[in-house]
Amino acid sequence: MTEGATANSGEAALRRTGGRYVEPGGEFTRDQRYIATRITADGGDGWPVEPGRYRLAVSRACPWANRLVIVRRLLGLEGVLSMAIAGPTHDRRSWSFDLDPGGRDPVLDIERLAEAYFARFPGYDRGITVPAIIDVPTGQVVTNDFGQMSLDLSTQWTAYHRDGAPELYPQRLRDEIDEVNGVVFADVNNGVYRCGFAGSQSAYDRAYRRLFDRLDWLSDRLAERRYLVGETITEADVRLFTTLVRFDPVYHGHFKCNRSKLTEMPVLWAYARDLFQTPGFGDTIDFDHIKRHYYEVHGDLNPTGIVPLGPDLANWLTPHGRGELGGRPFGDGTAPPPPPPAERVDPAHTPLR
Amino acid sequence: MTEGATANSGEAALRRTGGRYVEPGGEFTRDQRYIATRITADGGDGWPVEPGRYRLAVSRACPWANRLVIVRRLLGLEGVLSMAIAGPTHDRRSWSFDLDPGGRDPVLDIERLAEAYFARFPGYDRGITVPAIIDVPTGQVVTNDFGQMSLDLSTQWTAYHRDGAPELYPQRLRDEIDEVNGVVFADVNNGVYRCGFAGSQSAYDRAYRRLFDRLDWLSDRLAERRYLVGETITEADVRLFTTLVRFDPVYHGHFKCNRSKLTEMPVLWAYARDLFQTPGFGDTIDFDHIKRHYYEVHGDLNPTGIVPLGPDLANWLTPHGRGELGGRPFGDGTAPPPPPPAERVDPAHTPLR
Repeated sequence: MTEGATANSGEAALRRTGGRYVEPGGEFTRDQRYIATRITADGGDGWPVEPGRYRLAVSRACPWANRLVIVRRLLGLEGVLSMAIAGPTHDRRSWSFDLDPGGRDPVLDIERLAEAYFARFPGYDRGITVPAIIDVPTGQVVTNDFGQMSLDLSTQWTAYHRDGAPELYPQRLRDEIDEVNGVVFADVNNGVYRCGFAGSQSAYDRAYRRLFDRLDWLSDRLAERRYLVGETITEADVRLFTTLVRFDPVYHGHFKCNRSKLTEMPVLWAYARDLFQTPGFGDTIDFDHIKRHYYEVHGDLNPTGIVPLGPDLANWLTPHGRGELGGRPFGDGTAPPPPPPAERVDPAHTPLR
Repeated sequence: MTEGATANSGEAALRRTGGRYVEPGGEFTRDQRYIATRITADGGDGWPVEPGRYRLAVSRACPWANRLVIVRRLLGLEGVLSMAIAGPTHDRRSWSFDLDPGGRDPVLDIERLAEAYFARFPGYDRGITVPAIIDVPTGQVVTNDFGQMSLDLSTQWTAYHRDGAPELYPQRLRDEIDEVNGVVFADVNNGVYRCGFAGSQSAYDRAYRRLFDRLDWLSDRLAERRYLVGETITEADVRLFTTLVRFDPVYHGHFKCNRSKLTEMPVLWAYARDLFQTPGFGDTIDFDHIKRHYYEVHGDLNPTGIVPLGPDLANWLTPHGRGELGGRPFGDGTAPPPPPPAERVDPAHTPLR
């Protein structure tokens, strides 16, 4: 094991092995070993919370990175934790900053995210994943353990939360949030990948049934309550949302999650629209990056690399009617202001606007 | 050119080149050269209409063959023109009769459809396509020109039509039927293949727009009238139906025809259900064969060969409400009786029943 990287139980990032993603002959198993270092208020791991010191590397395509982008927005951390946005596609040499002038991240001054990993761990041989947080002074990756990372934004960066920031991981609800997150991760967040990367018909069939059984369960749960846990938005909603928003553009066709579209599951579709229309959620979504990533990168699922023009996405802004269920999105807090201009998604990438 | 095969303008069958279907770098162009020999009432080409003499070779997967299966049912020709049903998948050596005992068609006594082509044209080097009509005494293919074939069932086999057979190609409507068939072929029947087999993003984009523009046009046309031409079912409806019934199971995902599902286009979806529920249409449909064919055969679009479990198809039997538009499906005729027992689709292949 590489120093500082340990097996962990919670979450996982996309494994990349040079265009080959399908697990021949069997089930897709996610490599869940991450760099488990934490950035904490007390700096126990050597990396204390400090405004302006770190940079969050993301891709707007990636559902796991999308969680961090949303949580950072909701908590108003844009001013203290800057963000590097990689392009939507990558090769086996990892995510690159090809959207930036000269193809280099202007703060880290690197072309590829891998450079930050190698700066800390020469010869690092696991997945070079987003999201990752990089220590700007040394250029070293601190962590890519995104399950922990988003919780730490809620619990360790409290001194820098904006006025009116919501409580996304309140102490009294943590057991329930953790429980929901566990099944949502296994059956939904990772479940769609298990459908798409299945290497046998039987592995696919099992993953498909498990996914839609869980979506039915979630639909029942959300029929009478506006949010997954409690009366306000929590980390649990963030995690479900980033999969649902990608469902029709990519998982339905590309990953063969096609019992029905999200738009054909009325409760989940209204729930997803409700969140999409909540500041901090929909304004982080780049459908163009999402579609290009999946269809261009997974060469063993889509050898032509052709990106579908559909689906029609204008319907994301239609009324959702979920207000009738009660709930207060931000609890005693308030909605975040619009994103800083430099972080706004290109309107041409989101046909609905 | 092979003797008896000429370029023809109307219709086309699936080109097979050993698992490669995509046209690298450009547009898919269908090879439209068929064996143009006709079976006619006067036997002008040397093959006169004669009960019991010919055998229609089809696959239930294939939309072009499906037309013939439907027309034969509607006209009640089952007793005079027998049917050989190939399995849903094939390799580069062509369609095979692997559903039959011993893997041989019991009437033609051949394993592969290619044998009937070679019996007439040694070294035949074009596509071995279904539908095809074979002369049973000689074992030779007579024609695979399926555009002409279905019209000839209507116009040349009249002496053997059942009592109450509908007029599918009535003299007074032929110009209008031909006109509709022309645009439906170019933009829809073949249009979905142009999306799926496009070898460049720009070729795909053009095909997608042309397809959905035409579907919008058809939707407008069918909003106030029950059938495409006139007040009754005609050849034009048969040809549009065989593409629409495959839309959500295969074209939407596999061919990236994904602006919307058929179920999201209300007029076309009701029109398709109306036909599906009309005797002679839905009872020819084998969704299992349809899905297996496309997803298993097109190795360059779906290298894993995994066949999606979705979509949920139970909704094909929901009420369509099209009766309010008037029209009489069979005109002065009647609906056909159920298919002969030997030709009934396996109920396990059609989850809706």
